[in-house]
Amino acid sequence: MSSETTRKMPSQIQLLKDDYPWIQTPLVVGAPMRLIALAGMAVEISKAGGIGFIGAGTDVSDLQLHLDNTVSLLSSSRLRTQHDVLPIGVGFINWGADLATAIPLIQQYKPAAVWFFAPSSPSSLLEWTSKTRDVSPHTKVWVQVGSVREARDVVQNVKPDVLVVQGTDAGGHGLAQGASLISLLPEVCDAVSALSFEGGYAGPVIIAAGGIVDARGASAALVLGASGIVLGTRLLASSEANISRGYQNEVLRASDGGQSTVRTKVYDNLRGTTGWAQSHNARGIMNRSYVDAVSGMSEEENKRLYEEEVKKGDAGWGEQARMTTYAGSAVGLVREVKGAGEIVREVREGIEGLLVDAKASL
Amino acid sequence: MSSETTRKMPSQIQLLKDDYPWIQTPLVVGAPMRLIALAGMAVEISKAGGIGFIGAGTDVSDLQLHLDNTVSLLSSSRLRTQHDVLPIGVGFINWGADLATAIPLIQQYKPAAVWFFAPSSPSSLLEWTSKTRDVSPHTKVWVQVGSVREARDVVQNVKPDVLVVQGTDAGGHGLAQGASLISLLPEVCDAVSALSFEGGYAGPVIIAAGGIVDARGASAALVLGASGIVLGTRLLASSEANISRGYQNEVLRASDGGQSTVRTKVYDNLRGTTGWAQSHNARGIMNRSYVDAVSGMSEEENKRLYEEEVKKGDAGWGEQARMTTYAGSAVGLVREVKGAGEIVREVREGIEGLLVDAKASL
Repeated sequence: MSSETTRKMPSQIQLLKDDYPWIQTPLVVGAPMRLIALAGMAVEISKAGGIGFIGAGTDVSDLQLHLDNTVSLLSSSRLRTQHDVLPIGVGFINWGADLATAIPLIQQYKPAAVWFFAPSSPSSLLEWTSKTRDVSPHTKVWVQVGSVREARDVVQNVKPDVLVVQGTDAGGHGLAQGASLISLLPEVCDAVSALSFEGGYAGPVIIAAGGIVDARGASAALVLGASGIVLGTRLLASSEANISRGYQNEVLRASDGGQSTVRTKVYDNLRGTTGWAQSHNARGIMNRSYVDAVSGMSEEENKRLYEEEVKKGDAGWGEQARMTTYAGSAVGLVREVKGAGEIVREVREGIEGLLVDAKASL
Repeated sequence: MSSETTRKMPSQIQLLKDDYPWIQTPLVVGAPMRLIALAGMAVEISKAGGIGFIGAGTDVSDLQLHLDNTVSLLSSSRLRTQHDVLPIGVGFINWGADLATAIPLIQQYKPAAVWFFAPSSPSSLLEWTSKTRDVSPHTKVWVQVGSVREARDVVQNVKPDVLVVQGTDAGGHGLAQGASLISLLPEVCDAVSALSFEGGYAGPVIIAAGGIVDARGASAALVLGASGIVLGTRLLASSEANISRGYQNEVLRASDGGQSTVRTKVYDNLRGTTGWAQSHNARGIMNRSYVDAVSGMSEEENKRLYEEEVKKGDAGWGEQARMTTYAGSAVGLVREVKGAGEIVREVREGIEGLLVDAKASL
């Protein structure tokens, strides 16, 4: 079964090179982190040979502004694209994003990719996909999943160009219950390989997310069957992240993420984010709010304390504070703020050496 | 940081070859699964060039029998060992195992390794370690950890020969809260590399457990920084597993382990296993007992139903049944019963090809 998966990889990688001609492989992608990954980060990632995503999330009211910023930031660079697409992607949290606003923007700006996540229903995902393909046939459709069943359903129903497989180490939102990439990714690869398709669709390119912050995690994802990898938490500590200093410092401080982070709905509840399905929660660094919530403090009191804390600005983040620090379980490997482009290059360029060393040490 | 980790690997692997001369690398280890991994499995794994462990667990009253069986199963084979140790290991769940019974057996049979896990206190771990080293200086001490902090503490306090780093995908018992190998292992490698030692101790060899069932997971663990890997769940479906047919069939049936398994204390409670610390629970396949427990059924009633189910034998296992099926989140990749030796060889021999293919597809 492993040989099947790896036999498929070269053609998947050729597909990536054809679809996104400016990239260098192995492909490093910037996660569409809501409010944090905007034009500056997306452009730097794409300029470094990756694919940067704008995190439109649930609210697309500022998306036009972010896309305008992207166009102007890209005006001096000459990234080779196909069919004049914009060489970045846009990520939507579909249950909250307004389709009627988004589709004309996709039509107008033609992002190289859209990344769909957490639609309210399979038919909603199908609608987003077909409308995107109608208005911008060269925009590739990426869909994020977190289980084998979801992967199979999405591939059969939507025929995405890219399947983003998210393991449970990921920071921010994802399935409340799940496996990490080490077991999830090979099983998804096998399940997708076992499907048969018609009409010229050859199956999706598989890209891995969740717990990857350096070349080691990236190399692991590639041998597990991915054709590219996504960085999220690592880019919280990039110069281009649209992030409070307090949040970023907390990411640099935290270590031992299996112990210091937790998947929970507590932070959504405190912040009044009520639209997520019961099936989803988010991983963040444990803080006072979390400890109080699990110790039985009423949500009302916890919210009140949270809202007090908001006024403190950067001092509101920390183990003993209350502002939310979404981050993945690899947060302890993030120790320094660097440019997003440098991060992408470092991860990509580290992979080959690791694979060579691993082979040599057998 | 990644280069440091990989620079260290060749010497760690040389150390393994020196300490366990019969092995072939990359090293594949059989987890000391309590009641399931006994002499037959341990011997087949070691004969296949791995290191097999007997799962003594919390109860060492039958250990002498298992060691005698090991000796007779090994009598016809000539595995090259150092200092006449027995070329298998013994795994203890230290909080429950009786030290006074175990130490004389370690002295008498001189297993190549002991694997310590979940001691009642750091000083208990130290006592087990020093007494083992006193009575059998060539028996190597392996200690299992599940967090960066635990890794650092154990390495500084006990100076283990091997540190087994267990990610949260693992089946059976482990830390209730944790990260998977993809983020945990590199951070542990960095933390251990950053320690300085005196007195000729050069730090532990690092071996990875949790979510690995095939060459893909194994290759991933190696590029993440491990010098060897542990199989647990995969060996539940081996001919040598001391396991009920019902349990084994359930392992073969289950898929999508992130969704079908869960970390919980429910199964321990039903079975009356009360000695585990609050910090630990176990991953098993969700069944009726679990669903009823989270739906609010009283523990008393759930236990009563469990005890009824025990009488059904093999029919007591399954999604709609109540017997416990401990298994890791990679259970969906386990599809066939094979000999333990064949499993070990397949995993080991698959690694090189995967690393070569991954490098070629860059």
